[in-house]
Amino acid sequence: MDQKQTTPTAGKPIRCRAAIARAAGEPLVIEDIIVAPPREYEVRIRIICTSLCHSDINFWKLKDPPGFAPRIFGHEAIGVVESVGENVNDFAEGDTVVPTCIPDCRECVDCKSEKSNLCSTVPFEISPWMPRDGTSRFTDTQGNVLYHFLSVSSFAEYTVVDIAHLTKVDPAAPPNRACLLGCGISTGVGAAIRTAKVEKGSTVAVFGLGAIGLAVAEGARLCGASKIIGVDINLNKFEMGKKFGLTDFVNSADLGGKSVSQVINEMTSGGADYCFECVGMSSLVQEAYACCRKGWGKTIVLGVDKPGSKLTFNSVDVLHSGKIITGAVFGGLKAKSDIPQLLKRYTDKELNLDDFVTHEIGFSEINTAFDLLLQGISLRCVIWMGK
Amino acid sequence: MDQKQTTPTAGKPIRCRAAIARAAGEPLVIEDIIVAPPREYEVRIRIICTSLCHSDINFWKLKDPPGFAPRIFGHEAIGVVESVGENVNDFAEGDTVVPTCIPDCRECVDCKSEKSNLCSTVPFEISPWMPRDGTSRFTDTQGNVLYHFLSVSSFAEYTVVDIAHLTKVDPAAPPNRACLLGCGISTGVGAAIRTAKVEKGSTVAVFGLGAIGLAVAEGARLCGASKIIGVDINLNKFEMGKKFGLTDFVNSADLGGKSVSQVINEMTSGGADYCFECVGMSSLVQEAYACCRKGWGKTIVLGVDKPGSKLTFNSVDVLHSGKIITGAVFGGLKAKSDIPQLLKRYTDKELNLDDFVTHEIGFSEINTAFDLLLQGISLRCVIWMGK
Repeated sequence: MDQKQTTPTAGKPIRCRAAIARAAGEPLVIEDIIVAPPREYEVRIRIICTSLCHSDINFWKLKDPPGFAPRIFGHEAIGVVESVGENVNDFAEGDTVVPTCIPDCRECVDCKSEKSNLCSTVPFEISPWMPRDGTSRFTDTQGNVLYHFLSVSSFAEYTVVDIAHLTKVDPAAPPNRACLLGCGISTGVGAAIRTAKVEKGSTVAVFGLGAIGLAVAEGARLCGASKIIGVDINLNKFEMGKKFGLTDFVNSADLGGKSVSQVINEMTSGGADYCFECVGMSSLVQEAYACCRKGWGKTIVLGVDKPGSKLTFNSVDVLHSGKIITGAVFGGLKAKSDIPQLLKRYTDKELNLDDFVTHEIGFSEINTAFDLLLQGISLRCVIWMGK
Repeated sequence: MDQKQTTPTAGKPIRCRAAIARAAGEPLVIEDIIVAPPREYEVRIRIICTSLCHSDINFWKLKDPPGFAPRIFGHEAIGVVESVGENVNDFAEGDTVVPTCIPDCRECVDCKSEKSNLCSTVPFEISPWMPRDGTSRFTDTQGNVLYHFLSVSSFAEYTVVDIAHLTKVDPAAPPNRACLLGCGISTGVGAAIRTAKVEKGSTVAVFGLGAIGLAVAEGARLCGASKIIGVDINLNKFEMGKKFGLTDFVNSADLGGKSVSQVINEMTSGGADYCFECVGMSSLVQEAYACCRKGWGKTIVLGVDKPGSKLTFNSVDVLHSGKIITGAVFGGLKAKSDIPQLLKRYTDKELNLDDFVTHEIGFSEINTAFDLLLQGISLRCVIWMGK
């Protein structure tokens, strides 16, 4: 046996519990599964805790590809390395790690560039397989293959993750905070600090106050924005959002005949410097664009709309306004360098992660996490595997 | 009489020749017109020479608003101040000036910002009138009002221009070069150096090799781009373009079944860093976007499409690609500071303006300039008023 692999389970399949989505939109079923050993460039991890993100729900609802069943969802998590495959040098048994849907090989032109976080070695894909060899590491007890999700699949006691999708973190960090950095919160905070590069004293409008929208607000707060306007139809979100720096609220369902852009243009004397669409509605992207300040306003697309949906802009507006449209996955962050940095900002009491965790439950109650998010009650529900 | 106004014509109407567009798409007619004295914040100019830009032609063809007739076109020119109106402090009789369609008051938040060139004092508008009071300074000999064009109207021996639309230049500069900086060439060069901020060693694709497209190439050359690819259906443009730094040519009409984006992706190992659409076709903007490098590629919209035309992008592409879409008027330049700077780069033999001037004619031959541009024979035809 390789010197690196000292656990008795190394190199062998592990039988453990997983929450399987057997049919689109149906409650997950906790069953035993078999997790194969990690192959080349892969690591097997024991999940400590995981949280539920809207992307899990979006894909869980899909009957057709990119929806697949039976599948193991979950992509915000923290765990401990159980064993490593061939050609794994930077991870060892016992390391505390956060998996991410976005890869970061640290070696390709993109990963080395300051301008990109779209790894070319292991391109980001919405695939139901392991990223390099296009196979699964999961089978059920009948031997049927189970699909992966976003290269993570953390709704299982053990999972296998490619090293490009894995970040080592401080083992002393609270797992129920660190796990949040695996997707949604990093995406929102990153979109403000990295993609938009929000400037001190600037004005920001955030469309949609779910966890990502509130994380954008939190990022904008860290950047020193002077006005952070939340746009939502639920006033309760404003109270929640104040903890993340929201200064103003626009109820888009109650504007007295005005459009959102009219209201925001008035509030900001001509448009917000940065507008973030965090819902996933093309029409809202257009509204966000209209809310942007001429000359320099940036519209950042973060929401995931239905496959095939289009964004439409007036040609002359794009030509004449000088505004910028862009988007980002994972907020433009690089997992391996930025996650540890955000975690440090949390332990330094700069970054508010605590208030994102509205609920904590045991693994057997995982369907409750779905209910809470679907009803808009939770921001993040942490699911502890050991409970 | 005000001390500043010493010419005998100051304060009086001037009768002079102008080339009037009496009907959409019809040859211009040279007639005598009456040019009223400049009002508050205005300057009356004797035009030395002017050149013809595609925007003149686009609006000249329009039967309905924003097309207007009878109108005095022309918006790339150089002249000498004949007299000034009230509240004009920075211009005096005898100053050599370049008028611009884009205003630059130097005092508003936009003109003071490094990020915008969209003056808020005298907002850029496609209007047939003087920008501040919405009237005309031109009448024909029957007393009928003549419309202005883009706040310049340089196809006349005298015109009246708002001080926000006027830049003082070195009187020693060759007028048949300086006049080019009033619109098209500045737009192209500016789009590369200011809007896109092309970096040394980067790759650039330019869609449409008219004067603006070639000026983009020239700007990219000044920035040190390593590969500047021209996309056009006319191979002759490539020969012309080599003088402005074009290194490669893609004939979009002859690609052997491939798409432009496939070809450019191959030529640039994954996409150009900067793509400029200089034609004014929405479908070409999509193609340019597809040619951009993932992670950081910028698509810059410079072409003027038909009013009401839309730009459409796949929502998921904008979200996942990290690419940027933007546009600019006048290449994001500020007239009063950037035109003198570009003129200096010309006299310092850095910026190639000479090769843009393919033809020079006298004012009475102005319709020849339209023919040459419509036939794609000329880049810039300089029209001398005194000839």
